[in-house]
Amino acid sequence: MRRPRLAIELFQPVRDVEALPPDDFAAVLARLDRKFAVMEQLGVRTALVCSSVHPRAVDDDDLAAAQLHEVAARAADRGLRLAYEALAWGRHVNTWDRSWRIVEAADHPALGVCLDSFHILSRGGDPAPIRDVPGEKVFFVQLADAPELAMDVLPWSRHHRLFPGQGSFDLETFTAAVAAAGYTGPWSLEVFNDVVRQADPWRAARDARRSLLALEEAVGAPAAGLPSRPPVHGPAFVELAVDPATADEVGTVLHALGLDATGRHRTKPVTLWEAGDARVVVSEEPVSTTSVAGLAVRTDDPEALASRAEALLAPRRPLPHAADEADLRAVAAPDGSLLLCCPRRPQPGRPDFWPGDFVPTDVPRRPGHVEGIDHVALTPPWDDVGETSLFHRAVLGLGPVGEWEVAAPFGLVRSRLLGGGPLRIVLSSSVVRRGGWSPGVPAPQSLALAVDDVLAVSRAAAAAGVRLVDVGPNHYDDLVARGWVDEDTAAELHAHRVLLDRDEHGEYRHVVTEVLGGRVFLEAVQRIGGYRGHGAADAPARMAAHRRARAADQSSGSTPA
Amino acid sequence: MRRPRLAIELFQPVRDVEALPPDDFAAVLARLDRKFAVMEQLGVRTALVCSSVHPRAVDDDDLAAAQLHEVAARAADRGLRLAYEALAWGRHVNTWDRSWRIVEAADHPALGVCLDSFHILSRGGDPAPIRDVPGEKVFFVQLADAPELAMDVLPWSRHHRLFPGQGSFDLETFTAAVAAAGYTGPWSLEVFNDVVRQADPWRAARDARRSLLALEEAVGAPAAGLPSRPPVHGPAFVELAVDPATADEVGTVLHALGLDATGRHRTKPVTLWEAGDARVVVSEEPVSTTSVAGLAVRTDDPEALASRAEALLAPRRPLPHAADEADLRAVAAPDGSLLLCCPRRPQPGRPDFWPGDFVPTDVPRRPGHVEGIDHVALTPPWDDVGETSLFHRAVLGLGPVGEWEVAAPFGLVRSRLLGGGPLRIVLSSSVVRRGGWSPGVPAPQSLALAVDDVLAVSRAAAAAGVRLVDVGPNHYDDLVARGWVDEDTAAELHAHRVLLDRDEHGEYRHVVTEVLGGRVFLEAVQRIGGYRGHGAADAPARMAAHRRARAADQSSGSTPA
Repeated sequence: MRRPRLAIELFQPVRDVEALPPDDFAAVLARLDRKFAVMEQLGVRTALVCSSVHPRAVDDDDLAAAQLHEVAARAADRGLRLAYEALAWGRHVNTWDRSWRIVEAADHPALGVCLDSFHILSRGGDPAPIRDVPGEKVFFVQLADAPELAMDVLPWSRHHRLFPGQGSFDLETFTAAVAAAGYTGPWSLEVFNDVVRQADPWRAARDARRSLLALEEAVGAPAAGLPSRPPVHGPAFVELAVDPATADEVGTVLHALGLDATGRHRTKPVTLWEAGDARVVVSEEPVSTTSVAGLAVRTDDPEALASRAEALLAPRRPLPHAADEADLRAVAAPDGSLLLCCPRRPQPGRPDFWPGDFVPTDVPRRPGHVEGIDHVALTPPWDDVGETSLFHRAVLGLGPVGEWEVAAPFGLVRSRLLGGGPLRIVLSSSVVRRGGWSPGVPAPQSLALAVDDVLAVSRAAAAAGVRLVDVGPNHYDDLVARGWVDEDTAAELHAHRVLLDRDEHGEYRHVVTEVLGGRVFLEAVQRIGGYRGHGAADAPARMAAHRRARAADQSSGSTPA
Repeated sequence: MRRPRLAIELFQPVRDVEALPPDDFAAVLARLDRKFAVMEQLGVRTALVCSSVHPRAVDDDDLAAAQLHEVAARAADRGLRLAYEALAWGRHVNTWDRSWRIVEAADHPALGVCLDSFHILSRGGDPAPIRDVPGEKVFFVQLADAPELAMDVLPWSRHHRLFPGQGSFDLETFTAAVAAAGYTGPWSLEVFNDVVRQADPWRAARDARRSLLALEEAVGAPAAGLPSRPPVHGPAFVELAVDPATADEVGTVLHALGLDATGRHRTKPVTLWEAGDARVVVSEEPVSTTSVAGLAVRTDDPEALASRAEALLAPRRPLPHAADEADLRAVAAPDGSLLLCCPRRPQPGRPDFWPGDFVPTDVPRRPGHVEGIDHVALTPPWDDVGETSLFHRAVLGLGPVGEWEVAAPFGLVRSRLLGGGPLRIVLSSSVVRRGGWSPGVPAPQSLALAVDDVLAVSRAAAAAGVRLVDVGPNHYDDLVARGWVDEDTAAELHAHRVLLDRDEHGEYRHVVTEVLGGRVFLEAVQRIGGYRGHGAADAPARMAAHRRARAADQSSGSTPA
């Protein structure tokens, strides 16, 4: 193993140093002597001094400056220096500008400030004036993002910090302001959260580095070797890995929803299904459960997109193919599924002409109601959601559109819709481990087709004998009680198994199939107006109905458990 | 299956009903007509009306009362009634006494209040005056405990409510006040938390019912058949289940720490070890990992204690024994380990004379430094900690002495010390799943012996060739830096592998053995003054040292992984 080129850039934290009565301050000096000795042993030059939370600390900036001057002089005697940081919960000093005023007043070359984005942004501080601080007086910078949470800053900081780009803080403005100040020291990540503490260190390091690469790019200073994002236009196809025992059932359902089997792979047991702009590639392979195996997107420059993903630390996945088959660029997403980078318009003769791998069937394409892919819903473990979100944000430019909490029959589920880019991805996860008692599907996935008339799709499915989930009458009673639809419409929706949700922007009508092959179900989704969600409000009823259907199948013996 | 005798006592919630402008109120009436129809279908007589959070709700108690009167009249027309509840985050009405004043002013027989302990106690409300409300105007009562958390009441309520006795709210005063008011309706549990949502329903129901049984007893109205707690005096013994391959090593360590093998079981491969008031029973049986298999306590009335545990829904565990062997009372704790109820002073001739099962060895008991059992540290899954705590509280009267968060090398660990009764139990758990990468012991347990001279114990262990954990020099440098000990004492402690912690009450000095048999380690603990913790601050260094020792053993091949 190569010896890592590691250095300790900061010794932290030193607490309760300033604005103290004389007796306490004398004890501080004795304590600091020990700390300085440890720093020398470790070869660290800079120490972080947090603003005091001491019960006897006084509200006196002159005293704070005088005492910080004294400890800085002692540090300087040993060639050390101190970075003073305003904790968001400091007893008297809890804003960066006040910490800077005290450092200015203390006026010692071994004393500067440490700027931590969490401490500043969690209190709604304005980072813009940071650009006016002399860069050489910024001794250290700590970056952390966070979600907006309705809790005290201290537990928020200790348990919920995130890597930049995973939360809702404006790290770009903060970072730009610090850079504009002329700061030249390390950009460190100061991220405390329960997930990162527990994570595989290599995986956490990759996630962390990806966040910095994306942040650098966002502030206009992309790392060398990071290709910028080429235009991405939407899904090329979604690949389902389906056990041969389930393939017929999946085919029946796809056909009933309006897709046609337009091609068979020339050499593999793979079928291409199409309708409108929706393409689904079904790979038959012996798998324990059916799953979403890959997302393929259309882009102007597949190689640039794949190289970008690789530079953002996604492993390249060369796809085995015969000499006369398409050579598609692919990388692995954090959950192990493939992200395939396809040409915007596949053209015969190009090496990445993937439709050429399929022999056209003689099945005519039916006119119908499917317009394309609405979204794919995946279920990473909850502690992987931040990493997965950042991956899609950094590589594809997807951002969080909304978050929901669902009181599902087997426990709380959080879902996050990523969108605002070429495709929509829903990430749903259980926040507590599921016990062995739980009869649910452990990690269900869905593929939702966008349709222009969900009632027509429902009728066609019924005519084809495909069972759609019936959540029962309460859902429809409730729609009427809310005043969303009248009795007749409710009856029509129920007869068609159509679930309805609404937000302030529009309406969402969808039908849901049974779970196929142990894990995946399909949806047909009609968005009316600018509805922004993914029907999360319906999820508890849908899950309960899925469970009922499964229980009925098991008791009748028609389907394996 | 017997048909369960279930009824729906409350339809909830009906929101945003009162203190609204006329147009909005007209929509409320239409909505309520639908809700009332659903109630009739379900056979529910009472609906919960939460105080309004509507953005157009006005701060006008007279209007609120008038509108509530009107909806109550409509409810009464159908034989229904409404229980008005002040949400802790109600827009204008967020205290129980204000909700009661409005109900009084509305003055309709179909309108009463709903009292929810969370909404009242989370805001620091005084429940005492509830006793002055006419009991018949309290239409419903909802019980929930909660931990003190520094967050907004809404997420606190939605995610962190607990069953009574699992948090820090004073449910007893609340319950007594409601009972004194003359309330005769159902006592419901209104507990939203992520764990209960996910839990096995039967297990959650048992936990819930146990909480009510304990609360009833606490307010002086114990359920019929619940024996009161007989005096419990401390541990009788701790039972370790040890794989035969590890038994010699465990024996060596026990002996080195000062215990003597004073008895061999007459018919089983079980050894009794003793020193001072500490007794450890080592059962050799083929197990995958060594574990703490049972806690035995000494009590004036073993049968009453076991019956009490059984009435508190712990399964009885009859212990197989020969006709001439002791017949001990035992129940299963939530983690499956045994709680054994032993006589205070085992006497020959009594059927529960368990020492009679052991043939005395000719090993003389050495004088030494072991005084007794200090504590046992267990590691339930974090979502079982509430249930486990309540079990020990209800059965044995143990309460939480303190809680700690430990930034351990493999992730955050929370620990809770139960005490204030006949023994101390530490419950520690990882708050996030451990990944497969984690090299740690998944669920370590420890048995801590109370000693009067930890330095002497350390010397004896060293003389016997037993390795104690060395956390390295940083711990000792830090003790000096804190001003807790001088350099010489630090050096002496380090030479003896003694870890030191301190709180405002006293000091804690302990030595720790290697992990034996894959899971359990032993400690010798000296408490000086009134120290109340369990050395949680040392845990990260201890865990890292355990890991280093394991890695060294694995690389030298001397110990199986």
